Amino acid sequence: MSKLYDIKNPEYVKTLSIKELESLCEEIREFLIDNISQTGGHLAPNLGTVELIVALHKVFDSPKDKIIFDVGHQAYTHKLLTGRAAQFNTLRKYGGLSGFLKRRESEHDIWEAGHSSTSISAATGFAYARDLQGEDYHVVAVIGDGSLTSGLAYEALNHLGQSGKRVIVILNDNKMSISQNVGAVNVMLNKMRVSRRYQKAKNIYLRVIKKEKHIFNLAKRIRDGVKSFFLQNNVFEEMGFEYYGPIDGHDLPTVIHFLNKVKTIDKPVLVHLVTKKGKGYKYAENDECGIWHGVGPFNKETGEFLNKSQANVKSWSKIICEGVTRLAKEDERIVVITPAMKQGSALESFEQAFPDRIIDVGIAEEHAITFAGGLAMSNMKPFVSIYSTFLQRAYDQINHDLALQDLPVVVGVDRAGLVDGDGETHQGIFDVAFLRHIPNTYIMMPKDAHEAYDLLYTAFKSEKLCFIRYPRGNASTEGLDEHQFTYIPLGSWTIEREGEDYIFITYGPGIDYIKSICDKNQINAKVINARFIKPIDEKLLKDLISENKPIIVFEEVVRTSSLNSAILEFAHKERLSISNIYSMAINDTYVGQGDRNLLYKELHLDEESILKLINSLKDEANEERTN
Amino acid sequence: MSKLYDIKNPEYVKTLSIKELESLCEEIREFLIDNISQTGGHLAPNLGTVELIVALHKVFDSPKDKIIFDVGHQAYTHKLLTGRAAQFNTLRKYGGLSGFLKRRESEHDIWEAGHSSTSISAATGFAYARDLQGEDYHVVAVIGDGSLTSGLAYEALNHLGQSGKRVIVILNDNKMSISQNVGAVNVMLNKMRVSRRYQKAKNIYLRVIKKEKHIFNLAKRIRDGVKSFFLQNNVFEEMGFEYYGPIDGHDLPTVIHFLNKVKTIDKPVLVHLVTKKGKGYKYAENDECGIWHGVGPFNKETGEFLNKSQANVKSWSKIICEGVTRLAKEDERIVVITPAMKQGSALESFEQAFPDRIIDVGIAEEHAITFAGGLAMSNMKPFVSIYSTFLQRAYDQINHDLALQDLPVVVGVDRAGLVDGDGETHQGIFDVAFLRHIPNTYIMMPKDAHEAYDLLYTAFKSEKLCFIRYPRGNASTEGLDEHQFTYIPLGSWTIEREGEDYIFITYGPGIDYIKSICDKNQINAKVINARFIKPIDEKLLKDLISENKPIIVFEEVVRTSSLNSAILEFAHKERLSISNIYSMAINDTYVGQGDRNLLYKELHLDEESILKLINSLKDEANEERTN
Repeated sequence: MSKLYDIKNPEYVKTLSIKELESLCEEIREFLIDNISQTGGHLAPNLGTVELIVALHKVFDSPKDKIIFDVGHQAYTHKLLTGRAAQFNTLRKYGGLSGFLKRRESEHDIWEAGHSSTSISAATGFAYARDLQGEDYHVVAVIGDGSLTSGLAYEALNHLGQSGKRVIVILNDNKMSISQNVGAVNVMLNKMRVSRRYQKAKNIYLRVIKKEKHIFNLAKRIRDGVKSFFLQNNVFEEMGFEYYGPIDGHDLPTVIHFLNKVKTIDKPVLVHLVTKKGKGYKYAENDECGIWHGVGPFNKETGEFLNKSQANVKSWSKIICEGVTRLAKEDERIVVITPAMKQGSALESFEQAFPDRIIDVGIAEEHAITFAGGLAMSNMKPFVSIYSTFLQRAYDQINHDLALQDLPVVVGVDRAGLVDGDGETHQGIFDVAFLRHIPNTYIMMPKDAHEAYDLLYTAFKSEKLCFIRYPRGNASTEGLDEHQFTYIPLGSWTIEREGEDYIFITYGPGIDYIKSICDKNQINAKVINARFIKPIDEKLLKDLISENKPIIVFEEVVRTSSLNSAILEFAHKERLSISNIYSMAINDTYVGQGDRNLLYKELHLDEESILKLINSLKDEANEERTN
Repeated sequence: MSKLYDIKNPEYVKTLSIKELESLCEEIREFLIDNISQTGGHLAPNLGTVELIVALHKVFDSPKDKIIFDVGHQAYTHKLLTGRAAQFNTLRKYGGLSGFLKRRESEHDIWEAGHSSTSISAATGFAYARDLQGEDYHVVAVIGDGSLTSGLAYEALNHLGQSGKRVIVILNDNKMSISQNVGAVNVMLNKMRVSRRYQKAKNIYLRVIKKEKHIFNLAKRIRDGVKSFFLQNNVFEEMGFEYYGPIDGHDLPTVIHFLNKVKTIDKPVLVHLVTKKGKGYKYAENDECGIWHGVGPFNKETGEFLNKSQANVKSWSKIICEGVTRLAKEDERIVVITPAMKQGSALESFEQAFPDRIIDVGIAEEHAITFAGGLAMSNMKPFVSIYSTFLQRAYDQINHDLALQDLPVVVGVDRAGLVDGDGETHQGIFDVAFLRHIPNTYIMMPKDAHEAYDLLYTAFKSEKLCFIRYPRGNASTEGLDEHQFTYIPLGSWTIEREGEDYIFITYGPGIDYIKSICDKNQINAKVINARFIKPIDEKLLKDLISENKPIIVFEEVVRTSSLNSAILEFAHKERLSISNIYSMAINDTYVGQGDRNLLYKELHLDEESILKLINSLKDEANEERTN
């Protein structure tokens, strides 16, 4: 059994020699590949940070020193060094070890995230607090180069650099976000990467030029006016950081050496490590698309994924992309925008068909949306594909830039609803609530792939600001190739199943779920497909309410400001009774990780809870009859 | 009469000589000072851009060429040159000329904003569309140095720089956001500003060093490995922009010369103009705090503002700041964070008392919130003051960084509700809706200054994530100096006025407004102070509903997901009837500029509308009695 199971806390690594630490790194790598091949998880990011994290715990004293990981999906080694090896078989499972950092797991997890680029902001806060309180500890932020493309990281660098606060920013530069990194800053980093002898060259130059007095004097004279003219500073130095790098992030003694060195510097420092995503696992090392960023179980010998694709089934992301691709063949105004999620959003087929009409803007959701607005204003038809949870970043851009100007942009809200393993930070349960109150918005969710195609068609045709939600997971593609696109009247619902005793109103995958429960339990219920969450089908809804039967609104989003609220608001406006309306949705709380079935149980959305509600309604009805 | 009134479109400036244009600039300046001294408006920003905008319309062909102004509050000269002089007496008034750009006003207004830092994103979108469509026009984005501190601007620069797209970014650098600009990029810009002879010096140096062969060769050798080592690039050049500047932005011929020059460049260009905010009006020129950024009417000879401060009345911003200052005297953990709004949020008194405990992070709402999270995690008590409309920028930071970690940060939501002259982009009518569904949040609004003090006290004491809303405008400070802070139980409402026939539920300035209408019209109504919008006072609400009287929920926010929705959701959960509940709030639409009284009329929130509702309720009651 691995000695990793015996590690209680980071004190352990402090007792080891460099040689022992190097062998520890090997062991960690093996452990990670072994475990993740069984549980799934973020493989490539974690293989890239083994030496870095071992070095961090060798040099710094956590939790007194504050180590803040950006996102946190690269910190498995940190989990191992803080006594959590034994829980790795529960990774990302219901009630198990989180794939990110959680304060409830360890006193060494001092900041939680899941969305990128928050670490420097948080670290700056920790540093101000330390200085205001007259304390003396180190604050370290570990951030990837991909995360640097986000505006939040820049806002923080801009503040931290000028503040002069003692913070050590570790730039874990692997040239990737999830897939290959983009943007001008990436180009700059690339320049730095190729300049390993940067400091050395600078020093030689300074030595030589100092001998040539007249040149030096001229240089100096100009420099006095034009600061840092000769002493080429990179952008981090210009921003007020002391810069060290680029350093080979897998060269443990060097990393330790530099971390020890920067501990003594009383200003913002940036340590630029060059690492290899997937280091030590050949399939992941050679991956340029990000396939090995986050994975399900796989055969570690062959690199084959175990969850084989089934026939006639595709991921929702893929279905949507293929639908957009088909529509784009007919309409050259359609362009696709992705904030660094080409792989996650499965946009490859569009890219193959139209390489010039797909634009990866990097991890930059805000820009993605406003940029789409510029395109729409110029008569293009942008499709922006963003995970529901990441769309939160662009709330103002949706409201102030798109909706206010009523711009026809189609937003694919990917991973809408529960997302299994990623947990609290990634659940797509807020988008209905944060979009529904914005004027000029249309929110929809298809029940299946065919309806998805039609809603896409409708969205582009309507020239409105449309949000098409689709869940994580797969759907049947039966007959999809022959699908004839049909326009769906905006705001129209349909009756999916007839029934006499109850009325279910739901949308998206809720339709099949509720229908199958009704079928199985012989519930004589009507099932309504509320494929438009905004606007709602007022006419149909009015009829339904007037049927005077129990109406159950079933949703996989927070109840506050859900479709249920929209129905209540409508009933209220029309002075209709709500006494027959029942809501099944998520209470005002965050939802943890785990299999959807288990989460459904916890959230009282499971079959049992539905039957319980139905039975209580039966009892009520019987009582009424008796009275 | 000024010849400005005769200008129909920008063709006019194309007919003028440089000399005539210079005299036109003088005339424009005079016009602006004259008019704004009477109407109020954004004085200083507009005085700084006169030559720039004249030059833009001299060199480019709007609307074929796309000129995109960041925010748009600096584009009054653009309005004058596009035929809108005659409407300047209606500036910022109900139904009048907007203080920002509006497509409905002119075909030359091609992009609307009000929040900062969107222009480069939009311009990048315009440029991609142009190239995809095979068109050939210029795209120009005009952005201030203050706006560059925002992450959105950076995300766009990062994308545009690498894209190589032909866009001209004009950096209007006046060293200010609203007040003095901050951050590392500002420091960089400052370096550039002092290096006017930058290009010249670079050239001399290159000439000299080329003569010294051996040095040059060494330099060249190293440069091959270390690109741009000797040829110092500034950050914009590093990002892929061709850089021109710094240029005196008030030297019209030079500005025109450079704009003509950059027209020919087929890649992203950044033209760095140094301008003076308030140029040509001495009081505004000497202003370092931003007092002259946006003003009310003033005496143009003396620079005195005409809206004199009244006795025993202060702005809400000031009241809140003084409350925080008093609390901070007792609790050294309290720190104040502002995203470049020290002046707008009236934080000067806190700064005087605790210069080390106020942190201006620049226009960077996202960072402001996550940074506050870092402070809170380290046992500090941050107070972040942000306008409601700008808080939209930080939705994800509130949700993912603060609420998810349940961090005790107090957010002062300034300018909550309608804001008069600024219009659609600045109305604080969405915050209740975008905050209410986030778990772990507390949303409150005081009815007066005393309650504001107590809510502040309560918020800091409770150690919860609290949002305290307060409106634009003033409130009485009577007796405030002697105020004894009192803890208010979270979620507790109060009965402000007793009455038998109706129940009004409202909050904030709604209380006095409704009370006075009831008094004046002898409406026998109970008035409830719903000072907590979340959580609501469930016990009191239940009692109120059981009274079986008409309940009117009056709010100055969008109705969707308002307090009214919260009440409906509660009634629904408790299986209570909503048939007695009536909502007065803002429909699902944006609200334009204008005096609150006029807006209230338009939105059916005015006295007449309230009386109309009351009368219809009376009729209903009578009918019921008759039946």
